[in-house]
Amino acid sequence: MSSFLSSLQKARKSTIALFAIAASSLTLTAPAHAAVTEETAFVFNTFSFLVNGVLVMWMAAGFAMLEAGLVRSKNTAAICLKNIALYSIAGLMFYLVGYNLLYVGVDEGGFIGTFSFFYDSGDTEVALLSAETSTEELITAVTSNGYSVMSDWFFQMVFVAATASIVSGTLAERIKFWPFMLFIAVLTAIIYPIQASWSWGGGWLTELGFSDFAGSSIVHSVGGWAALSGAIVLGPRKGKFSADGRVKPIPGSNLPLATLGTFILWMGWFGFNGGSQLALGSAADAVAMAIVFVNTNIAASAGVVVAMILTQLLYKKIDLTMALNGALAGLVAITAGPDVSHAYMAIIIGGIGGAIVVFAVPLLDSLQIDDVVGAIPVHLCAGIWGTLAVGIFGSGTFVSQLTGIIAIGAFTIICSTGLWLLLKMTVGIRVSEEEEYNGLDVSELGLEAYPEFGRGSQKLV
Amino acid sequence: MSSFLSSLQKARKSTIALFAIAASSLTLTAPAHAAVTEETAFVFNTFSFLVNGVLVMWMAAGFAMLEAGLVRSKNTAAICLKNIALYSIAGLMFYLVGYNLLYVGVDEGGFIGTFSFFYDSGDTEVALLSAETSTEELITAVTSNGYSVMSDWFFQMVFVAATASIVSGTLAERIKFWPFMLFIAVLTAIIYPIQASWSWGGGWLTELGFSDFAGSSIVHSVGGWAALSGAIVLGPRKGKFSADGRVKPIPGSNLPLATLGTFILWMGWFGFNGGSQLALGSAADAVAMAIVFVNTNIAASAGVVVAMILTQLLYKKIDLTMALNGALAGLVAITAGPDVSHAYMAIIIGGIGGAIVVFAVPLLDSLQIDDVVGAIPVHLCAGIWGTLAVGIFGSGTFVSQLTGIIAIGAFTIICSTGLWLLLKMTVGIRVSEEEEYNGLDVSELGLEAYPEFGRGSQKLV
Amino acid sequence: MSSFLSSLQKARKSTIALFAIAASSLTLTAPAHAAVTEETAFVFNTFSFLVNGVLVMWMAAGFAMLEAGLVRSKNTAAICLKNIALYSIAGLMFYLVGYNLLYVGVDEGGFIGTFSFFYDSGDTEVALLSAETSTEELITAVTSNGYSVMSDWFFQMVFVAATASIVSGTLAERIKFWPFMLFIAVLTAIIYPIQASWSWGGGWLTELGFSDFAGSSIVHSVGGWAALSGAIVLGPRKGKFSADGRVKPIPGSNLPLATLGTFILWMGWFGFNGGSQLALGSAADAVAMAIVFVNTNIAASAGVVVAMILTQLLYKKIDLTMALNGALAGLVAITAGPDVSHAYMAIIIGGIGGAIVVFAVPLLDSLQIDDVVGAIPVHLCAGIWGTLAVGIFGSGTFVSQLTGIIAIGAFTIICSTGLWLLLKMTVGIRVSEEEEYNGLDVSELGLEAYPEFGRGSQKLV
Repeated sequence: MSSFLSSLQKARKSTIALFAIAASSLTLTAPAHAAVTEETAFVFNTFSFLVNGVLVMWMAAGFAMLEAGLVRSKNTAAICLKNIALYSIAGLMFYLVGYNLLYVGVDEGGFIGTFSFFYDSGDTEVALLSAETSTEELITAVTSNGYSVMSDWFFQMVFVAATASIVSGTLAERIKFWPFMLFIAVLTAIIYPIQASWSWGGGWLTELGFSDFAGSSIVHSVGGWAALSGAIVLGPRKGKFSADGRVKPIPGSNLPLATLGTFILWMGWFGFNGGSQLALGSAADAVAMAIVFVNTNIAASAGVVVAMILTQLLYKKIDLTMALNGALAGLVAITAGPDVSHAYMAIIIGGIGGAIVVFAVPLLDSLQIDDVVGAIPVHLCAGIWGTLAVGIFGSGTFVSQLTGIIAIGAFTIICSTGLWLLLKMTVGIRVSEEEEYNGLDVSELGLEAYPEFGRGSQKLV
Repeated sequence: MSSFLSSLQKARKSTIALFAIAASSLTLTAPAHAAVTEETAFVFNTFSFLVNGVLVMWMAAGFAMLEAGLVRSKNTAAICLKNIALYSIAGLMFYLVGYNLLYVGVDEGGFIGTFSFFYDSGDTEVALLSAETSTEELITAVTSNGYSVMSDWFFQMVFVAATASIVSGTLAERIKFWPFMLFIAVLTAIIYPIQASWSWGGGWLTELGFSDFAGSSIVHSVGGWAALSGAIVLGPRKGKFSADGRVKPIPGSNLPLATLGTFILWMGWFGFNGGSQLALGSAADAVAMAIVFVNTNIAASAGVVVAMILTQLLYKKIDLTMALNGALAGLVAITAGPDVSHAYMAIIIGGIGGAIVVFAVPLLDSLQIDDVVGAIPVHLCAGIWGTLAVGIFGSGTFVSQLTGIIAIGAFTIICSTGLWLLLKMTVGIRVSEEEEYNGLDVSELGLEAYPEFGRGSQKLV
Repeated sequence: MSSFLSSLQKARKSTIALFAIAASSLTLTAPAHAAVTEETAFVFNTFSFLVNGVLVMWMAAGFAMLEAGLVRSKNTAAICLKNIALYSIAGLMFYLVGYNLLYVGVDEGGFIGTFSFFYDSGDTEVALLSAETSTEELITAVTSNGYSVMSDWFFQMVFVAATASIVSGTLAERIKFWPFMLFIAVLTAIIYPIQASWSWGGGWLTELGFSDFAGSSIVHSVGGWAALSGAIVLGPRKGKFSADGRVKPIPGSNLPLATLGTFILWMGWFGFNGGSQLALGSAADAVAMAIVFVNTNIAASAGVVVAMILTQLLYKKIDLTMALNGALAGLVAITAGPDVSHAYMAIIIGGIGGAIVVFAVPLLDSLQIDDVVGAIPVHLCAGIWGTLAVGIFGSGTFVSQLTGIIAIGAFTIICSTGLWLLLKMTVGIRVSEEEEYNGLDVSELGLEAYPEFGRGSQKLV
């Protein structure tokens, strides 16, 4: 079985250049009426980054609503705050140093980009905007890049924000606000960019043939590993596991909000995977993006259906939260290879993602790892599966995929665990028992998310 | 009075081909600097399907929130589950057989497409993606189709999902989960595609001159008929109608959620109607799409205002749910002819839609038909009006429009009623009285949507 | 320091024409393979208006959710109704007269457009759509305008709706429904269009060199001034200020909803600012739009972070609502000049916006002005700052910016206050004390937003 697009896309950044060259050389031979001109392709590529990037930005709201719906009401305002704060900090950090570490000056086969501050439009783009009248040379100089540099920055920035969003759900209801934000700042400034430079920046994993179209590993597993190491260092919520090892279910307080969050994430994922085609300026790119959209949708649908059927068979009830996480697991699973050539492959990949969630959630519980929203099963477990699936259905080899998974995982675990431990030993990462009992809304924010509802939500453990 | 675009659009599928030919022949005579090249038009058309399709996909979330807000809290998680499940199943079924039944190989004047499994990219698109270097011949072969085939599949898929979403609201709070999903599977695999093949597939209703731009009848009335037949077979909720025929109002549990759902649907409708122009690759298409956007918005606005004024006059209060349904009725009404030449026509069409809802809701009550969210007044009644309005303001004739309405209605009623009765006699479609009393969340899902809120929501009838 | 784009954009309408000429003349000298053809540019420009316009339309939902989350539950349905009603009325009024007053026939250096009814597609566009076969002349006639006229109408309409949305939040929980709607009708039909004609219509403020890219003053401050004058005429909510001048905090009833609203507004702001580039049909426009997207995001992030740090330092807690308003203030502040050349400027502009909110909220309280959602600090105060910032970081001069702020402010204050007083003296603008006590949902709508939740929300003052 083969993948259409992966062979065209070795490194996430260099792809456009390849396409640009292809398009450009094409126009020399093709009649003018048939081809996309270079400037038109530039506009398409740029607009694709912006439109798809907005959809990915919207996923920040999806994570916020999903997590707000799955925590108890006494921690709802706190998780809302964390989500808007982490999105903000991720963007600032990526501007400060992250983008440069990921994309600027990564050696062929290298391990890291450049440590330098800020990233703004290049000289030619500035010149084009400042020019009284644009010369053809200036336009050619700008358009030969394939896309506007800041549109690419925007699209990549929302990806690092998604990575950060994954972590907040797992660690909800007990982590201190500011230490968590310090972790997010380092994650988005340093950890994420360095490992992503290995593949999307054109580093050593690209050399190896590792293929991760939109980031099953690079985004989702990294978020999952950071969440897992945090969950272990932080420990479970009070009362989640009894002394004799029994698991106490702690139901989410607002399931329609969690449903809304899932739909938002599903919607945003079209931008996440579709935009990762990284170009729209040719018929081939448009065809590829359409296939990616369809596979993305089909995989999520399969994840829902498999999770529903399994929970019906196993528990005689269909757990809504499992169906929602089934959708997300299907989406995570297809993310490494949404360019598979037939949609039935997407059904298989997404369906297995849905099954993974159903089995990984109780497994985590049995390990006494407390993941409030199920982010580890969804983003880590299904992310690993999706990355491996490219070795089966797509163009990657199983060995290169496994190498990437292990390398990215090891790096993220080591950095994250070290950072969590450092924070724990210095500023502390966990609120007091009393604060946890009263809820983070009252303790850290001094307010309630739903002051008029309920039977005293902060009284519930 | 005349319609700009309808004459150009006989069948929903063949339109592009027409435009593609027009554009292609144009470029032979026009100077190269003026026209859109064929490949550029291909990218525009494809990207329009994807972007507008995402907006329509988003309507699934709109239906979910609208319905979650309008049911009682004891059935809220269940309606969320139904909405994400039906969207998933609709997509899988449309991939499995639906699209082929609708679009592939419909004879001119025919009644059905091809019964075959799966729908994927064609050979030329596969060849283009696999090619080391794209040849001009390959690009021409792909772009002569006008758009990427999977982008069209995606856009059509979200329409069948919208049809399915309509049904869940009417039948909420009492229908069994799995039998409902069986109905949805058949509706989206068989019923919807066959009737849509008559017009959008280029079948006999196209021959007749029936015109339904984006589906007032083909999508909304079909969903409405399926809901109506289901409501009759299923019967009303316990307590909705007393023995002496009085109607007990059962208020929705979360009106801001219903408001959000309406705004989502309104937003998504720009994709629904605008994308149904089916092309963006020429100035004419862009102009037409802009007109469609404006008329869509104006009709919804008029629906809101008329519904508000009428409820103020009739009841001395402005019912929020009536205003929301007024917006939706305005949107449904304009859907058959959003290409009318002046926006004042959209005001009339949408305003009458809003009025229809205000009168149809109590009419249904008087017939003891229990429609939990008002989907029948909105989608069926306003859908019929909108389809007829094309005969007044647009290009269709009154007779052809009426024929289409009756044919589509009769087919859908017969198939749906038969299927509902079959399900009722075999697996059963209604939960037990006790389960209904306790709410579907606890009975079928084993959880509560808002476990911390309220005065024991599952205790309310 | 300089601004890239402002010099290109004197009046909001004339920009496109400039670009169209530039692009058109360009194609005469440039080889056909390099440039965007005129018709392709027309499609890009039109599609940009539509896609970005949908994002701005979506902000109506953002305001609705923000306000629904920040009022008490007894007034939640009423604020939802107001938001969908004002969006509807704004669209109808802008179609009826507003657009013509703003854009049609404004004299150079003039003060007002044309008072005439309705705005529809021009003759050439109608001819193009009606033509059996499009002639090159017809296409050239249409495309020489740069964009489809109704796409521009749509984009401008959603801006006037945003202005109206700002007012409803401040005056929530005590204003009568229909008088408020009368105000909105006049605001959107007359007040907003006239002052906007001075700059975006090409009137006297354009002559003066006043620069307001996407409307820090023209949209946000105008909404803020209208809200402020309304708040003063209407008076504070019962119980908000005690006789001895103490302020009673009245917490919002649903903070995740307010968070969702903020994320929606943030998302929509990419369309608000990005679409205000008003063109996408050249490399320069695409580059500019990308820069605008990035600066918009960065400014909002800075607003969040500054508001969080300040509230932590001042109050030892991080108030979620302050963080949300910090994001919005950052967005409002960058709106006048999102085209600044370096993103660090956006950090400064947005960060100061966030700080303004933290200090303006208690200032308003000390003046006993009751602004339920903080719209005045966000839209008026940060809007003034953002407009001034263009004089510092952008192309405008400090004097021209200040002149614009004062002129727009004085005009809006006079018109709004006059209208509020007229309404107060005739139909009355405030509900009775008993109705306020019981909540507007029960009093004016005859229903409850959350009938099953809480401890009798309508009993809370």
